[in-house]
Amino acid sequence: MSRYHTASTLESLIEPRMRHLLADFLAETPGIEGIESTRVLDAMAEQALTSNAGGKRFRALLSLATYRAFAPEHQRLGHRREPQKAGHAEASHATPDRATPDRDECMLDIACAIELYQTSALIHDDIIDESAMRRGKPSAHAALTTLMGDQRQGRALALMLGNMLATASAQIATSAFHRMTGTIDGSIAFSGMQHAVEIGQTLDLALERMPLNTAGQAQAALQVYRWKTASYTTMAPIEFGAMGAGMSPRYASRIAHEIGLPLGVAFQLADDLLDVTGDSHNTGKPVGGDIKEGKRTVLLADAIAAADTRDRTRLMDIMAADQRDARDVAEVTRMYESSGAIAASRRRITTLVDSSRSALGVLGLSSTAAAAIDVACSRFIPDIED
Amino acid sequence: MSRYHTASTLESLIEPRMRHLLADFLAETPGIEGIESTRVLDAMAEQALTSNAGGKRFRALLSLATYRAFAPEHQRLGHRREPQKAGHAEASHATPDRATPDRDECMLDIACAIELYQTSALIHDDIIDESAMRRGKPSAHAALTTLMGDQRQGRALALMLGNMLATASAQIATSAFHRMTGTIDGSIAFSGMQHAVEIGQTLDLALERMPLNTAGQAQAALQVYRWKTASYTTMAPIEFGAMGAGMSPRYASRIAHEIGLPLGVAFQLADDLLDVTGDSHNTGKPVGGDIKEGKRTVLLADAIAAADTRDRTRLMDIMAADQRDARDVAEVTRMYESSGAIAASRRRITTLVDSSRSALGVLGLSSTAAAAIDVACSRFIPDIED
Repeated sequence: MSRYHTASTLESLIEPRMRHLLADFLAETPGIEGIESTRVLDAMAEQALTSNAGGKRFRALLSLATYRAFAPEHQRLGHRREPQKAGHAEASHATPDRATPDRDECMLDIACAIELYQTSALIHDDIIDESAMRRGKPSAHAALTTLMGDQRQGRALALMLGNMLATASAQIATSAFHRMTGTIDGSIAFSGMQHAVEIGQTLDLALERMPLNTAGQAQAALQVYRWKTASYTTMAPIEFGAMGAGMSPRYASRIAHEIGLPLGVAFQLADDLLDVTGDSHNTGKPVGGDIKEGKRTVLLADAIAAADTRDRTRLMDIMAADQRDARDVAEVTRMYESSGAIAASRRRITTLVDSSRSALGVLGLSSTAAAAIDVACSRFIPDIED
Repeated sequence: MSRYHTASTLESLIEPRMRHLLADFLAETPGIEGIESTRVLDAMAEQALTSNAGGKRFRALLSLATYRAFAPEHQRLGHRREPQKAGHAEASHATPDRATPDRDECMLDIACAIELYQTSALIHDDIIDESAMRRGKPSAHAALTTLMGDQRQGRALALMLGNMLATASAQIATSAFHRMTGTIDGSIAFSGMQHAVEIGQTLDLALERMPLNTAGQAQAALQVYRWKTASYTTMAPIEFGAMGAGMSPRYASRIAHEIGLPLGVAFQLADDLLDVTGDSHNTGKPVGGDIKEGKRTVLLADAIAAADTRDRTRLMDIMAADQRDARDVAEVTRMYESSGAIAASRRRITTLVDSSRSALGVLGLSSTAAAAIDVACSRFIPDIED
C-alpha cells in the first residue's frame, strides 16, 4: 500500500486491505504436511474469504468518516503533507518519515478489523441459529458441512473459523492502535466490543425463553439490539474512529453512546421492518425470514401487546408452533400491520435517528465534518417510508 | 493482593487471582434487567467458575517457574526489595513505588490467563467432540443444555462462554504484558498461541478424515499434538514466562520450541497411554475413552502400522464402526500391547523428555533455576513405567 494516498481513496482501499490482512493471517502454516491437512486448511482459508465477501462495509466506512471528522488532514499526517498537485511539494515534507507510522494506514486496519470481527460473529451466529444461508450463499457451517460430508465436522470447522477471525481481528486492531497511540487503550476498547456482542448473543438466547406475552418483551428485545447489534455496528466504529483521531477513550466512548447507540438500535429495527415489508432486502435471506424462524423481534412484541384478543391468541399460536409456512408469514405480517406494530417501529426509528442526529449536531464539528459523519450514519437506515 | 509477597507464595495466589479475574470479567453488566436475562447471565458466570475449577494449573506453574528462573528476585522487583526478615529493611526501598507495577503481579495475571484460555479451549473442544463429561462433571454444553432444557440453546451458550473466556484471557494477558514491558509483544505472542490451537483443532478434524491405514498417520497425529496441545500446554507457558522475565520475544520463542515442544508432545502421548492403561487418570473420563470415541491417537496409528494382518484387519474394523463397547475397548487395548504400540509410545516419550531436558541443560541457568523448571516440566509427565 502506498504511504501517500488522497483522503478520497482511503475508502477504496478497504477491500484490498481486508484481503491482504486475511491472506497474512491465513498464510500457509509452516511444517504442516499431509493431503487431508492441506485440503482442510485450504478450505478454511477459502471459506474465510467467502464469508467475508459481499459485506457493504458500512461499519468500516462509519469508522473512517468519524476518524476524518475528528482529525483533519494536516493532523492525520503529522508534519507530513500530501504531494502538491500544482507541483510545488516541499521536499522536506514529501520524504516519508519511516519512524512515524501513517495514521491513515493504521485507521484503515482498525476499520478492516471491525469488518473481520463481524464475519466471525456472523459465522458463530449462523451456527447458533442453524441458518443455512447468509448473503444469498450457503452459510459457513453449511458450506463446510457440504465439503466434509458430515454435519458435526462442518459445524466444528465453522466454530474454529469464527475463532480464527476473532483472534485475527483483535490482533490487527491491537497492533494498529498501538502503532498510533503507544497505548493499549484501543485493545481494551476492541475487547470491550467483543464482550458486548457475546453478552448480546447470550441475552438473545435468554429472550427465546421468555413466554411470548411477558410484559416488557419489547424492552428486552431492544436490549438485545443494543448489545448484540449496536455494539459493533455503530458504537464501536464511532468509538474507534474517534480514538484513532486522538480523542480520549472516555470521550470516544461517550459519543459512541450518544450517536451510535440510538443509530444502531434504529438500524436493527429498520432491518426487521425490511424483512417484513421486503423492500430492497440485501441479507440474502427470504422475505419474512424472521417470522418463519420465530425470531423475537420488537415488531412481534409490539404486535402481541397491541393486538385485539382474537389476533393476539392467533399470533401467539402461530409463533409458538414448531414451524411456520408462507400462509403463516402472510397472516403474521397482516397482524403486524393491523396492530400498529409496523407504524410503531417506524416511529421508534424516527425518534432514535433524531436523537442520534441531535447528538452529532452538538459536538461542535465543522458543518463539513458533521455532514460526512451524517452520510456514513444514514447508510444504516434505508428508506423506510410507507 | 499485597504488593509484597515472598516468592514461595506466588503459586498459592493462582486460584484466588483467577477467581478475582473471572469475577471482574463476568461482573454484572449495567443496565440489563429482566428475569430471564439475569438468570441466564448468572448461569453463565456460574458455569465459567465450574468449568475453570479442578484444573491442576500445571501450565501456570510452568510459566511462573520459567519466569523465576530467568528473572532472579532482585531483578523482578526492580530496585525495590522484600521487607527484610531481620528487621533492617531500608526505608527508601521498602516504600512501594506506585509508578513501577509489581512484575510478579503481572506475571501472575499472565499465568492465570493461560489457564483461563485453556478453559475456553476445553469448552469448545467438548462441543466439537460432543463430550458430555469433563473432569468428572458435566461438560459446559451438557450442563447448560440441562439448564435450558434445550440442546441447541445449551450448545450456543457454551459456544459464547468459550468466546467470553477467550476474549477475557487475551485481554488480561495483553494488559499485564504491556504493564511489564510497554510493548505489545506479549499480546502478539498470546494471539499466536490462540491461532496455533485453532490450527490444531482444524488439523484434528482433518485427521478424522484420513483412512485408518494411510501411511504417515502417526506423523499426522504428532502434528496435531504439537499444534493443538503442546502450543498452549508447555510452549506458551515457557515463552510467556521468559518474556515476562525480560527475554526477547525471539529468544523466548526459541526456548519454548526447544524445551516446550518435545515436552508438550510427550505430555499428550503420556495422557493417551494413561487413557489405555488407566493408572491415576485424572481427566474425569472413563478409562478407554479415547478408544470408545474412536480418537486418532498415535497409539492407534502405531498399532495399525505394526500389527499382523489378522489383527490389523480386526483393529480397523472395530475402529471404523459407529461405536465401540467395553469388549471392543479390551480387545483394542490388547492389540495396542501385542503390536508393540504401547512400548513404542513409551520410547517416544523417553526420547522427547530427554530432548527437552537437554535443551534446558544448555541454557546456562544456575543449577537451582534449571532444577525449578525441571520440576515444573516433570508434572506433565506422570510415571509411565510398566
